[in-house]
Amino acid sequence: MNPRLYSFVGGKAGEWEVISMKAAAGEPMAAVERLNVIQGLVVSLPAHAKWALRGATSNARYTTAVEKAMLVAKQAAIGRPEAARAALIPIRKSTAWWDLPQDERRKIFEERSHHNKTGMKYLPEIARRLHHCRDLNQAEPFDFLTWFDYAPANAQAFEDLVGELRRSDEWKYVDRETDIRLAR
Amino acid sequence: MNPRLYSFVGGKAGEWEVISMKAAAGEPMAAVERLNVIQGLVVSLPAHAKWALRGATSNARYTTAVEKAMLVAKQAAIGRPEAARAALIPIRKSTAWWDLPQDERRKIFEERSHHNKTGMKYLPEIARRLHHCRDLNQAEPFDFLTWFDYAPANAQAFEDLVGELRRSDEWKYVDRETDIRLAR
Repeated sequence: MNPRLYSFVGGKAGEWEVISMKAAAGEPMAAVERLNVIQGLVVSLPAHAKWALRGATSNARYTTAVEKAMLVAKQAAIGRPEAARAALIPIRKSTAWWDLPQDERRKIFEERSHHNKTGMKYLPEIARRLHHCRDLNQAEPFDFLTWFDYAPANAQAFEDLVGELRRSDEWKYVDRETDIRLAR
Repeated sequence: MNPRLYSFVGGKAGEWEVISMKAAAGEPMAAVERLNVIQGLVVSLPAHAKWALRGATSNARYTTAVEKAMLVAKQAAIGRPEAARAALIPIRKSTAWWDLPQDERRKIFEERSHHNKTGMKYLPEIARRLHHCRDLNQAEPFDFLTWFDYAPANAQAFEDLVGELRRSDEWKYVDRETDIRLAR
């Protein structure tokens, strides 16, 4: 088994209570009440579940040495005891995005959209783990699953972060996005 | 199913006859007589088979717009009738490689090792399809599987291409490599 795989199972059971679920772009997902985050691969759904999304953490594709050093110095790991709020934001990018060469994707991602720079402003308060879905065995409905967690006091900072990213040029290439907010 | 998945099954049956099999770095693979290339996922081995390697084609990670345009203009697709010779070259890169940020990996790949530039010299004679293994569901023994095919008359050109790449700085990060040559 790929040791970097995670499954996010939505249904009637799980550690996290779903506070809100909104389609930010494209087709909505089926509403669920609770969510479980499982390290590993969930292939067959438990009886209570409506869906599972799967992704693998991997090497960063757009991060320079300078940015990586700054991120590593500031970022916090997922799972701090005080992080009682979380968000799961699955996104799919358009064919136009995937057809772009590496240098043009990088330019849109950082030079025009300041993706790393924006994320960095909210470190270490907002922790983040990115999962890639495109190169798994099965076709997945999204390309990326980002999992964030934070203390309740940083809920407004998280809104600001998400708002900034959604207004960026990079987000013109996002053709499906669901925003799931959670509490435990 | 991920529509970009391929499985390479080595054993006693298959379209391709194995002419030679050599470990270029690291642990050798079990010797086989024939190889089958299957679009899709082979999970359980057929009785005749000794191993299967799996990978998915994906977006290029180090190719600029200029390089992409040149590659697209010159390259041939896998499977030309005259391409009666092929090579499967699975490689694994070291943890040191995967820990490098994107800009440093790109510098080693192209500015120092001329990976795209070298490949381009041998287009369209040598066709190539790259498969990524790191983000599949299961842990795979290699990170990349490259499949090449060419007419028998271009066998020496293929030796030259492989030789040039193996002498590059990028190859210092290759810690396991097997070179499988095939004919049909």
